[in-house]
Amino acid sequence: MSTINKKNLFAVILAGGSGTRFWPLSRGHNPKQFLSLATRSSLLSETISRVQGFIPKDQIILVASHKHRKKVLAEAKKAGVPSMNVLWEPSGKNTAPAVCWAAQVIYQRNPQALLAVLPSDHLILKKNAFHKILMRAFELAVQDYLVTLGIVPTRPDTGYGYLNIQKAKRSQIYKVVRFVEKPDLKKAQEFLKKKTYLWNSGMFIWKAAVVLEEFKQHLPEVYKPFAWARSVSQVRKFWKTLPSISVDYGIMEKSRRVAAVPAQDIGWSDVGSWQALWEILKKGKQQNSVIRGAVLSEKTSNSLILGSKRLIATIGIDNLVIVDTEDALLICRKDQSQDIKTIVNRLKEKKLTRLV
Amino acid sequence: MSTINKKNLFAVILAGGSGTRFWPLSRGHNPKQFLSLATRSSLLSETISRVQGFIPKDQIILVASHKHRKKVLAEAKKAGVPSMNVLWEPSGKNTAPAVCWAAQVIYQRNPQALLAVLPSDHLILKKNAFHKILMRAFELAVQDYLVTLGIVPTRPDTGYGYLNIQKAKRSQIYKVVRFVEKPDLKKAQEFLKKKTYLWNSGMFIWKAAVVLEEFKQHLPEVYKPFAWARSVSQVRKFWKTLPSISVDYGIMEKSRRVAAVPAQDIGWSDVGSWQALWEILKKGKQQNSVIRGAVLSEKTSNSLILGSKRLIATIGIDNLVIVDTEDALLICRKDQSQDIKTIVNRLKEKKLTRLV
Repeated sequence: MSTINKKNLFAVILAGGSGTRFWPLSRGHNPKQFLSLATRSSLLSETISRVQGFIPKDQIILVASHKHRKKVLAEAKKAGVPSMNVLWEPSGKNTAPAVCWAAQVIYQRNPQALLAVLPSDHLILKKNAFHKILMRAFELAVQDYLVTLGIVPTRPDTGYGYLNIQKAKRSQIYKVVRFVEKPDLKKAQEFLKKKTYLWNSGMFIWKAAVVLEEFKQHLPEVYKPFAWARSVSQVRKFWKTLPSISVDYGIMEKSRRVAAVPAQDIGWSDVGSWQALWEILKKGKQQNSVIRGAVLSEKTSNSLILGSKRLIATIGIDNLVIVDTEDALLICRKDQSQDIKTIVNRLKEKKLTRLV
Repeated sequence: MSTINKKNLFAVILAGGSGTRFWPLSRGHNPKQFLSLATRSSLLSETISRVQGFIPKDQIILVASHKHRKKVLAEAKKAGVPSMNVLWEPSGKNTAPAVCWAAQVIYQRNPQALLAVLPSDHLILKKNAFHKILMRAFELAVQDYLVTLGIVPTRPDTGYGYLNIQKAKRSQIYKVVRFVEKPDLKKAQEFLKKKTYLWNSGMFIWKAAVVLEEFKQHLPEVYKPFAWARSVSQVRKFWKTLPSISVDYGIMEKSRRVAAVPAQDIGWSDVGSWQALWEILKKGKQQNSVIRGAVLSEKTSNSLILGSKRLIATIGIDNLVIVDTEDALLICRKDQSQDIKTIVNRLKEKKLTRLV
């Protein structure tokens, strides 16, 4: 790590999301990153802890939503991250505007800055292995690459985007030659066999200066406003004029200097569904996992149960997710949780906003 | 009905039961007869209404448990049945002691009395058809038969006891020649084909004098104490010495003068399980029945849902019973509700008596 000085390392943790996949536990005011599903602390808190010891506390930047102000400030305080380091998005605009804003703010503080952009709602169980991967990524970023962490596939998953990589001649660097949208099963099986495909994890490492250069070239409509205005009150004025676009689509897929660092055995999961959560949880003999609550089961298997105050009795069931909360109860086939979105939309249509 | 005077007709409604089949809705303090599952009023209330207009209000006798005093008195009052007409069992002793006590009390009031002994937790949807059957039964009871109503089978059910009947020579009377315990499926299928088998409904019609004669002969240990003592305070003294035994086993199976009246198309159900309840309820296109509560469903079929205050969302489920109450939630495969008993027993073992 000869060329890397800790003073130049920054983390940008994207905490503005508001998904519905963990409804009814997650709600608009309490999305996934604030839940502690498989860990003692929330996913956001775990994400902050994960970079601590590697990146100085006051160089950790959070991008979050005003809607979650209290929760975010509490997490920041707990972790020792200055509240000044939180950038408050006036509304959700996907990742590109958030990343551009953070890069500008950091670049002004330190033109030599190297950034690790990290989602706040993924799980990485092996911190030390992750640090090694991150260090390798920073080393590539120093060489002006846009680096993305790619997870080495362990199954033909059709739920992720894939990175098609190619080893550069006379070096150990994997260049990303193509971004592939979520494939069908047949393609995913091919990708798994070929070993030149990685899951796109949404974790990016680059120089602030380099990524700003890329924004200037590929997304000037996002770059320009931040080039002259970065204070919250200024940003608030033009924010609504920004396009809602992802870094992947707006920058990465267009850039010619994207490299990947393959990550294996770091215990990564994007915890993208109740099913994904069940897969990483500790299970009993019948492959059931009870996250909390009092449960009595007879002939029950392969199920995930998250209770609240009342007793839950299950008889003769298999492959279900049961989530009991104060005001809403979900009973869902474990592999059909994609339809939770439909339920949430129906609740919105019925104006039952207190439930979503 | 030449020989039958309304002054002689009595109903004995057995309301002392305390089953667990409808847990968690039914509890020790609120068993099935007090629930309104498929009807506007409770099953007990429906049972009382069903004989009204046929049997004078003050000739309706309830046998009930002290534990349910308030509920029973409220139901009696609502129906115009005098509270004096309730016989309070000090504890559950199955049906024979209750029936013997009621028969003695009624015989003292009217030695010509004819009794219809009726369970309080069955459903009979067609009141007029039921009255016709009941009248036929009283006519046989006048001829000193012990009459039992037998339901004409509509399916090879293995959950009921069966009556094997035989038409008496030169009459329209069906004598019961054999009582058959719950059969296996093969036998039940034979019974269905043969048409000489009826389901034992547990509804009995007889003269008070005749049934007391039978008690004297077959169950003297029950008969004798009531022969000299019928007041509550007296009964309370010897009650605990009585055997716990059913009328079926103690009297009917031993008597030689048992006749059956076949009942068809009276809309009978013993509502013996959540599955049985689902079968008689009105259902939507996907064969779901929501008894109460707010439910949003996606890809949900053949299920019974009974909600309380919280929203219930179901996705990708089939053939389930979901019962949500304030302090307990049941999720059970619809055809496995026999295991509810196991859950209730486990709760008792854990001394969680407030939940049972």
